Amino acid sequence: MELVPERLRQQIEFVMEIDKLKQIYRQNLIADTSRRENDAEHSWHIALMAVLLREYAEEPVDLEKVIKMLLIHDLVEVYAGDTFCYDEEAVKDKEAREKEAAQRLYSLLPADQEAELRGLWHEFEERKTAEARFAACLDRVQPFLLNYLNRGGTWKMHPVTSDQVRRRMAPVAEICPELGEYVEGLLVDAIAKGYLRE
Amino acid sequence: MELVPERLRQQIEFVMEIDKLKQIYRQNLIADTSRRENDAEHSWHIALMAVLLREYAEEPVDLEKVIKMLLIHDLVEVYAGDTFCYDEEAVKDKEAREKEAAQRLYSLLPADQEAELRGLWHEFEERKTAEARFAACLDRVQPFLLNYLNRGGTWKMHPVTSDQVRRRMAPVAEICPELGEYVEGLLVDAIAKGYLRE
Repeated sequence: MELVPERLRQQIEFVMEIDKLKQIYRQNLIADTSRRENDAEHSWHIALMAVLLREYAEEPVDLEKVIKMLLIHDLVEVYAGDTFCYDEEAVKDKEAREKEAAQRLYSLLPADQEAELRGLWHEFEERKTAEARFAACLDRVQPFLLNYLNRGGTWKMHPVTSDQVRRRMAPVAEICPELGEYVEGLLVDAIAKGYLRE
Repeated sequence: MELVPERLRQQIEFVMEIDKLKQIYRQNLIADTSRRENDAEHSWHIALMAVLLREYAEEPVDLEKVIKMLLIHDLVEVYAGDTFCYDEEAVKDKEAREKEAAQRLYSLLPADQEAELRGLWHEFEERKTAEARFAACLDRVQPFLLNYLNRGGTWKMHPVTSDQVRRRMAPVAEICPELGEYVEGLLVDAIAKGYLRE
Protein backbone atom coordinates (compact mmCIF):
# COMPACT_ATOMS: atom_id res chain seq x y z
CA MET A 1 0.00 0.00 0.00
CA GLU A 2 3.02 2.28 -0.46
CA LEU A 3 1.14 4.28 -3.10
CA VAL A 4 -1.47 5.60 -0.65
CA PRO A 5 -1.03 9.33 -0.02
CA GLU A 6 0.14 10.03 3.54
CA ARG A 7 -2.88 12.24 4.28
CA LEU A 8 -5.39 9.53 3.35
CA ARG A 9 -3.35 6.92 5.23
CA GLN A 10 -3.55 9.04 8.41
CA GLN A 11 -7.28 9.64 8.01
CA ILE A 12 -8.06 5.95 7.52
CA GLU A 13 -5.87 5.01 10.48
CA PHE A 14 -7.87 7.44 12.63
CA VAL A 15 -11.18 6.10 11.29
CA MET A 16 -10.14 2.58 12.28
CA GLU A 17 -8.71 3.61 15.67
CA ILE A 18 -11.98 5.24 16.75
CA ASP A 19 -13.79 1.95 16.16
CA LYS A 20 -12.71 1.33 19.78
CA LEU A 21 -15.43 3.74 20.95
CA LYS A 22 -17.86 0.86 20.32
CA GLN A 23 -16.24 -0.99 23.22
CA ILE A 24 -16.38 1.82 25.74
CA TYR A 25 -19.43 1.04 27.86
CA ARG A 26 -21.28 3.70 29.80
CA GLN A 27 -23.12 3.23 33.09
CA ASN A 28 -26.60 3.55 31.62
CA LEU A 29 -28.52 0.78 29.94
CA ILE A 30 -30.15 0.93 26.50
CA ALA A 31 -33.95 1.36 26.55
CA ASP A 32 -34.83 -2.35 26.69
CA THR A 33 -32.39 -2.81 29.65
CA SER A 34 -30.70 -5.79 27.97
CA ARG A 35 -27.20 -4.31 28.28
CA ARG A 36 -25.15 -1.18 28.92
CA GLU A 37 -24.92 1.44 26.21
CA ASN A 38 -21.62 2.16 24.48
CA ASP A 39 -20.19 5.57 23.60
CA ALA A 40 -20.60 5.16 19.83
CA GLU A 41 -24.34 4.48 20.08
CA HIS A 42 -24.77 7.26 22.63
CA SER A 43 -23.00 9.69 20.27
CA TRP A 44 -25.24 8.66 17.37
CA HIS A 45 -28.35 9.10 19.51
CA ILE A 46 -27.56 12.61 20.73
CA ALA A 47 -26.41 13.76 17.26
CA LEU A 48 -29.83 12.82 15.93
CA MET A 49 -31.49 14.43 18.98
CA ALA A 50 -29.72 17.66 17.99
CA VAL A 51 -31.43 17.50 14.57
CA LEU A 52 -34.84 16.90 16.17
CA LEU A 53 -34.69 19.19 19.20
CA ARG A 54 -32.70 22.15 17.92
CA GLU A 55 -35.79 24.40 18.10
CA TYR A 56 -35.66 24.27 21.91
CA ALA A 57 -32.24 25.94 22.18
CA GLU A 58 -32.77 29.47 23.57
CA GLU A 59 -29.79 30.84 21.65
CA PRO A 60 -29.59 30.09 17.91
CA VAL A 61 -27.08 27.34 17.13
CA ASP A 62 -25.07 26.26 14.09
CA LEU A 63 -26.46 22.73 13.77
CA GLU A 64 -23.55 21.32 11.74
CA LYS A 65 -21.14 22.43 14.45
CA VAL A 66 -23.31 20.96 17.22
CA ILE A 67 -23.51 17.62 15.42
CA LYS A 68 -19.75 17.47 14.78
CA MET A 69 -19.16 18.25 18.45
CA LEU A 70 -21.52 15.48 19.56
CA LEU A 71 -20.00 12.94 17.17
CA ILE A 72 -16.54 13.51 18.68
CA HIS A 73 -17.37 14.58 22.27
CA ASP A 74 -16.53 11.18 23.82
CA LEU A 75 -13.67 10.15 21.50
CA VAL A 76 -10.99 10.70 24.15
CA GLU A 77 -12.59 7.85 26.08
CA VAL A 78 -11.05 5.30 23.69
CA TYR A 79 -7.93 5.81 25.83
CA ALA A 80 -9.26 7.54 28.97
CA GLY A 81 -12.30 5.28 29.54
CA ASP A 82 -15.76 6.41 30.60
CA THR A 83 -16.04 8.34 33.86
CA PHE A 84 -19.37 7.98 35.67
CA CYS A 85 -20.67 11.50 36.25
CA TYR A 86 -21.71 10.79 39.85
CA ASP A 87 -18.36 9.18 40.82
CA GLU A 88 -16.68 12.06 42.68
CA GLU A 89 -13.30 10.29 42.99
CA ALA A 90 -12.99 9.43 39.29
CA VAL A 91 -14.14 12.89 38.20
CA LYS A 92 -11.07 14.43 39.97
CA ASP A 93 -8.41 13.28 37.50
CA LYS A 94 -10.77 13.05 34.52
CA GLU A 95 -9.48 16.25 32.95
CA ALA A 96 -5.82 15.19 33.05
CA ARG A 97 -6.57 11.70 31.70
CA GLU A 98 -8.67 13.06 28.88
CA LYS A 99 -6.17 15.74 27.90
CA GLU A 100 -3.47 13.10 27.50
CA ALA A 101 -5.86 10.92 25.50
CA ALA A 102 -6.74 13.83 23.20
CA GLN A 103 -3.06 14.45 22.51
CA ARG A 104 -2.50 10.79 21.62
CA LEU A 105 -5.65 10.32 19.54
CA TYR A 106 -5.97 13.53 17.56
CA SER A 107 -2.29 13.59 16.63
CA LEU A 108 -3.03 10.61 14.36
CA LEU A 109 -4.81 13.05 12.01
CA PRO A 110 -3.35 15.48 9.45
CA ALA A 111 -2.57 18.77 11.23
CA ASP A 112 -5.57 20.74 9.91
CA GLN A 113 -8.08 18.09 10.99
CA GLU A 114 -6.30 17.57 14.29
CA ALA A 115 -6.73 21.30 14.96
CA GLU A 116 -10.40 21.29 13.93
CA LEU A 117 -11.42 18.28 16.02
CA ARG A 118 -9.36 19.21 19.09
CA GLY A 119 -10.81 22.70 18.82
CA LEU A 120 -14.35 21.34 18.76
CA TRP A 121 -13.64 19.10 21.74
CA HIS A 122 -12.20 22.02 23.76
CA GLU A 123 -15.19 24.13 22.82
CA PHE A 124 -17.51 21.36 24.03
CA GLU A 125 -15.61 21.00 27.30
CA GLU A 126 -15.55 24.75 27.97
CA ARG A 127 -19.32 25.25 27.52
CA LYS A 128 -18.80 28.87 26.49
CA THR A 129 -20.56 28.93 23.09
CA ALA A 130 -24.25 28.38 22.31
CA GLU A 131 -23.32 25.22 20.38
CA ALA A 132 -21.31 23.76 23.26
CA ARG A 133 -24.09 24.51 25.74
CA PHE A 134 -26.79 22.95 23.56
CA ALA A 135 -24.57 19.89 23.00
CA ALA A 136 -23.99 19.56 26.77
CA CYS A 137 -27.73 19.83 27.35
CA LEU A 138 -28.45 16.88 25.01
CA ASP A 139 -25.59 14.90 26.55
CA ARG A 140 -27.45 15.15 29.87
CA VAL A 141 -31.00 14.70 28.63
CA GLN A 142 -30.36 11.46 26.70
CA PRO A 143 -29.17 9.27 29.64
CA PHE A 144 -31.84 10.91 31.83
CA LEU A 145 -34.54 9.74 29.39
CA LEU A 146 -33.06 6.24 29.29
CA ASN A 147 -32.98 6.06 33.10
CA TYR A 148 -36.58 7.17 33.30
CA LEU A 149 -37.66 4.63 30.65
CA ASN A 150 -35.67 1.93 32.46
CA ARG A 151 -37.62 2.64 35.68
CA GLY A 152 -34.51 3.89 37.40
CA GLY A 153 -31.59 2.20 35.62
CA THR A 154 -28.34 3.81 36.76
CA TRP A 155 -30.11 5.69 39.56
CA LYS A 156 -30.96 2.40 41.23
CA MET A 157 -27.70 0.58 40.47
CA HIS A 158 -25.71 3.33 42.19
CA PRO A 159 -26.64 5.31 45.30
CA VAL A 160 -27.81 8.35 43.34
CA THR A 161 -30.30 10.79 44.89
CA SER A 162 -32.82 13.12 43.30
CA ASP A 163 -30.73 16.09 44.48
CA GLN A 164 -27.71 14.85 42.56
CA VAL A 165 -29.78 14.28 39.43
CA ARG A 166 -31.45 17.68 39.79
CA ARG A 167 -28.06 19.40 40.10
CA ARG A 168 -26.77 17.57 37.02
CA MET A 169 -29.86 18.48 35.02
CA ALA A 170 -29.98 22.14 36.14
CA PRO A 171 -28.23 23.49 32.99
CA VAL A 172 -30.97 21.99 30.81
CA ALA A 173 -33.56 24.52 32.03
CA GLU A 174 -31.18 27.40 31.29
CA ILE A 175 -30.19 26.22 27.81
CA CYS A 176 -33.53 24.76 26.67
CA PRO A 177 -36.30 26.00 29.00
CA GLU A 178 -39.06 23.77 27.56
CA LEU A 179 -36.85 20.69 27.79
CA GLY A 180 -35.93 21.70 31.32
CA GLU A 181 -39.61 21.81 32.30
CA TYR A 182 -40.18 18.43 30.69
CA VAL A 183 -37.21 16.92 32.56
CA GLU A 184 -38.40 18.36 35.88
CA GLY A 185 -41.81 16.77 35.30
CA LEU A 186 -40.24 13.38 34.68
CA LEU A 187 -37.99 13.79 37.71
CA VAL A 188 -40.95 14.43 40.02
CA ASP A 189 -42.70 11.44 38.48
CA ALA A 190 -39.57 9.28 38.88
CA ILE A 191 -39.47 10.04 42.61
CA ALA A 192 -43.20 9.33 42.98
CA LYS A 193 -42.79 6.00 41.21
CA GLY A 194 -39.76 5.00 43.27
CA TYR A 195 -37.28 5.05 40.35
CA LEU A 196 -35.17 7.61 42.19
CA ARG A 197 -34.53 8.24 45.92
CA GLU A 198 -35.72 11.57 47.32
CA MET B 1 -47.32 14.59 32.12
CA GLU B 2 -50.48 16.14 30.64
CA LEU B 3 -48.80 19.55 30.49
CA VAL B 4 -46.22 18.48 27.91
CA PRO B 5 -46.87 20.12 24.53
CA GLU B 6 -47.96 17.57 21.92
CA ARG B 7 -45.06 18.44 19.61
CA LEU B 8 -42.42 17.76 22.26
CA ARG B 9 -44.23 14.59 23.34
CA GLN B 10 -44.07 13.27 19.75
CA GLN B 11 -40.40 14.18 19.38
CA ILE B 12 -39.42 12.47 22.62
CA GLU B 13 -41.46 9.39 21.72
CA PHE B 14 -39.53 9.19 18.43
CA VAL B 15 -36.19 9.70 20.20
CA MET B 16 -36.99 6.78 22.51
CA GLU B 17 -38.37 4.54 19.74
CA ILE B 18 -35.17 4.81 17.67
CA ASP B 19 -33.19 3.49 20.64
CA LYS B 20 -34.10 0.13 19.05
CA LEU B 21 -31.51 0.76 16.33
CA LYS B 22 -28.92 -0.26 18.96
CA GLN B 23 -30.32 -3.79 18.81
CA ILE B 24 -30.29 -4.17 15.04
CA TYR B 25 -27.15 -6.16 14.36
CA ARG B 26 -25.39 -6.07 11.00
CA GLN B 27 -23.44 -8.89 9.40
CA ASN B 28 -20.03 -7.31 9.88
CA LEU B 29 -18.00 -7.44 13.06
CA ILE B 30 -16.47 -4.47 14.89
CA ALA B 31 -12.72 -4.04 14.40
CA ASP B 32 -11.60 -6.26 17.29
CA THR B 33 -13.91 -9.08 16.00
CA SER B 34 -15.46 -9.54 19.46
CA ARG B 35 -19.04 -9.15 18.19
CA ARG B 36 -21.26 -7.96 15.35
CA GLU B 37 -21.74 -4.25 14.82
CA ASN B 38 -25.11 -2.63 15.35
CA ASP B 39 -26.79 -0.03 13.15
CA ALA B 40 -26.48 2.81 15.67
CA GLU B 41 -22.68 2.43 15.96
CA HIS B 42 -22.35 2.03 12.21
CA SER B 43 -24.34 5.25 11.67
CA TRP B 44 -22.14 7.13 14.12
CA HIS B 45 -18.99 5.83 12.43
CA ILE B 46 -19.96 6.85 8.89
CA ALA B 47 -21.29 10.25 10.02
CA LEU B 48 -17.86 10.99 11.46
CA MET B 49 -16.20 9.57 8.32
CA ALA B 50 -18.19 12.15 6.33
CA VAL B 51 -16.59 14.92 8.41
CA LEU B 52 -13.09 13.48 7.87
CA LEU B 53 -13.29 12.36 4.23
CA ARG B 54 -15.49 15.01 2.64
CA GLU B 55 -12.56 16.35 0.63
CA TYR B 56 -12.55 13.18 -1.50
CA ALA B 57 -16.06 13.74 -2.90
CA GLU B 58 -15.69 14.70 -6.59
CA GLU B 59 -18.81 16.87 -6.47
CA PRO B 60 -19.08 19.46 -3.68
CA VAL B 61 -21.44 18.32 -0.92
CA ASP B 62 -23.48 20.03 1.82
CA LEU B 63 -21.89 18.32 4.81
CA GLU B 64 -24.77 18.96 7.21
CA LYS B 65 -27.16 17.26 4.81
CA VAL B 66 -24.81 14.29 4.31
CA ILE B 67 -24.47 13.82 8.07
CA LYS B 68 -28.23 14.02 8.69
CA MET B 69 -28.76 11.45 5.93
CA LEU B 70 -26.20 9.10 7.44
CA LEU B 71 -27.63 9.46 10.95
CA ILE B 72 -31.05 8.35 9.70
CA HIS B 73 -30.21 6.11 6.71
CA ASP B 74 -30.78 2.83 8.58
CA LEU B 75 -33.63 3.94 10.87
CA VAL B 76 -36.26 1.95 8.96
CA GLU B 77 -34.41 -1.18 10.09
CA VAL B 78 -35.88 -0.81 13.61
CA TYR B 79 -38.95 -2.45 12.03
CA ALA B 80 -37.64 -3.91 8.75
CA GLY B 81 -34.45 -5.49 10.15
CA ASP B 82 -31.02 -5.48 8.52
CA THR B 83 -30.75 -6.96 5.03
CA PHE B 84 -27.36 -8.44 4.18
CA CYS B 85 -26.26 -6.77 0.93
CA TYR B 86 -25.07 -10.04 -0.62
CA ASP B 87 -28.27 -11.96 0.24
CA GLU B 88 -30.07 -11.89 -3.13
CA GLU B 89 -33.32 -13.37 -1.78
CA ALA B 90 -33.69 -10.90 1.10
CA VAL B 91 -32.78 -7.95 -1.12
CA LYS B 92 -35.87 -8.65 -3.31
CA ASP B 93 -38.54 -7.49 -0.84
CA LYS B 94 -36.27 -5.08 1.02
CA GLU B 95 -37.82 -2.02 -0.64
CA ALA B 96 -41.40 -2.94 0.28
CA ARG B 97 -40.48 -3.85 3.86
CA GLU B 98 -38.55 -0.65 4.36
CA LYS B 99 -41.24 1.56 2.84
CA GLU B 100 -43.79 0.19 5.29
CA ALA B 101 -41.34 0.67 8.16
CA ALA B 102 -40.71 4.28 7.11
CA GLN B 103 -44.45 4.99 7.13
CA ARG B 104 -44.82 3.54 10.63
CA LEU B 105 -41.69 5.14 12.13
CA TYR B 106 -41.64 8.63 10.67
CA SER B 107 -45.34 9.20 11.29
CA LEU B 108 -44.50 9.34 15.01
CA LEU B 109 -42.94 12.77 14.34
CA PRO B 110 -44.62 16.16 13.93
CA ALA B 111 -45.56 16.60 10.24
CA ASP B 112 -42.72 19.01 9.32
CA GLN B 113 -40.03 16.75 10.77
CA GLU B 114 -41.66 13.65 9.30
CA ALA B 115 -41.45 15.31 5.87
CA GLU B 116 -37.82 16.36 6.37
CA LEU B 117 -36.55 12.98 7.56
CA ARG B 118 -38.57 10.91 5.08
CA GLY B 119 -37.35 13.24 2.36
CA LEU B 120 -33.73 12.72 3.39
CA TRP B 121 -34.22 8.96 3.50
CA HIS B 122 -35.75 8.93 -0.02
CA GLU B 123 -32.94 11.11 -1.28
CA PHE B 124 -30.42 8.67 0.19
CA GLU B 125 -32.18 5.69 -1.37
CA GLU B 126 -32.44 7.32 -4.80
CA ARG B 127 -28.75 8.22 -5.08
CA LYS B 128 -29.50 11.14 -7.36
CA THR B 129 -27.86 14.02 -5.48
CA ALA B 130 -24.18 14.57 -4.70
CA GLU B 131 -24.97 14.23 -0.99
CA ALA B 132 -26.78 10.91 -1.43
CA ARG B 133 -23.98 9.51 -3.57
CA PHE B 134 -21.27 10.54 -1.11
CA ALA B 135 -23.32 9.07 1.75
CA ALA B 136 -23.76 5.80 -0.16
CA CYS B 137 -20.02 5.71 -0.84
CA LEU B 138 -19.20 5.93 2.88
CA ASP B 139 -21.88 3.35 3.70
CA ARG B 140 -19.94 0.92 1.48
CA VAL B 141 -16.40 1.89 2.47
CA GLN B 142 -16.91 1.51 6.23
CA PRO B 143 -17.86 -2.22 6.32
CA PHE B 144 -15.23 -2.88 3.63
CA LEU B 145 -12.54 -1.42 5.90
CA LEU B 146 -13.81 -3.46 8.86
CA ASN B 147 -13.77 -6.65 6.79
CA TYR B 148 -10.23 -5.95 5.66
CA LEU B 149 -9.08 -5.21 9.22
CA ASN B 150 -10.83 -8.38 10.42
CA ARG B 151 -8.85 -10.45 7.90
CA GLY B 152 -11.99 -11.30 5.97
CA GLY B 153 -14.84 -11.03 8.49
CA THR B 154 -18.15 -11.23 6.62
CA TRP B 155 -16.41 -12.29 3.39
CA LYS B 156 -15.31 -15.51 5.06
CA MET B 157 -18.48 -16.14 7.09
CA HIS B 158 -20.58 -16.07 3.91
CA PRO B 159 -19.67 -17.35 0.45
CA VAL B 160 -18.76 -13.91 -0.89
CA THR B 161 -16.37 -13.61 -3.86
CA SER B 162 -14.05 -10.80 -4.90
CA ASP B 163 -16.28 -10.16 -7.94
CA GLN B 164 -19.28 -9.49 -5.70
CA VAL B 165 -17.27 -7.18 -3.49
CA ARG B 166 -15.80 -5.39 -6.52
CA ARG B 167 -19.28 -4.81 -7.95
CA ARG B 168 -20.54 -3.49 -4.63
CA MET B 169 -17.56 -1.16 -4.29
CA ALA B 170 -17.64 0.09 -7.92
CA PRO B 171 -19.57 3.31 -7.12
CA VAL B 172 -16.80 4.38 -4.71
CA ALA B 173 -14.34 5.01 -7.56
CA GLU B 174 -16.91 7.16 -9.37
CA ILE B 175 -17.93 9.22 -6.36
CA CYS B 176 -14.55 9.48 -4.60
CA PRO B 177 -11.78 8.50 -7.07
CA GLU B 178 -8.95 8.53 -4.51
CA LEU B 179 -10.95 6.41 -2.07
CA GLY B 180 -11.81 4.08 -4.95
CA GLU B 181 -8.13 3.57 -5.71
CA TYR B 182 -7.40 2.94 -2.06
CA VAL B 183 -10.22 0.38 -1.82
CA GLU B 184 -9.02 -1.41 -4.98
CA GLY B 185 -5.53 -1.65 -3.47
CA LEU B 186 -6.92 -3.21 -0.30
CA LEU B 187 -9.09 -5.56 -2.34
CA VAL B 188 -6.11 -6.89 -4.30
CA ASP B 189 -4.23 -7.27 -1.04
CA ALA B 190 -7.21 -9.05 0.60
CA ILE B 191 -7.24 -11.64 -2.22
CA ALA B 192 -3.46 -12.12 -1.98
CA LYS B 193 -3.72 -12.66 1.78
CA GLY B 194 -6.61 -15.09 1.48
CA TYR B 195 -9.18 -12.86 3.23
CA LEU B 196 -11.40 -12.99 0.13
CA ARG B 197 -11.96 -15.69 -2.53
CA GLU B 198 -10.93 -14.81 -6.09
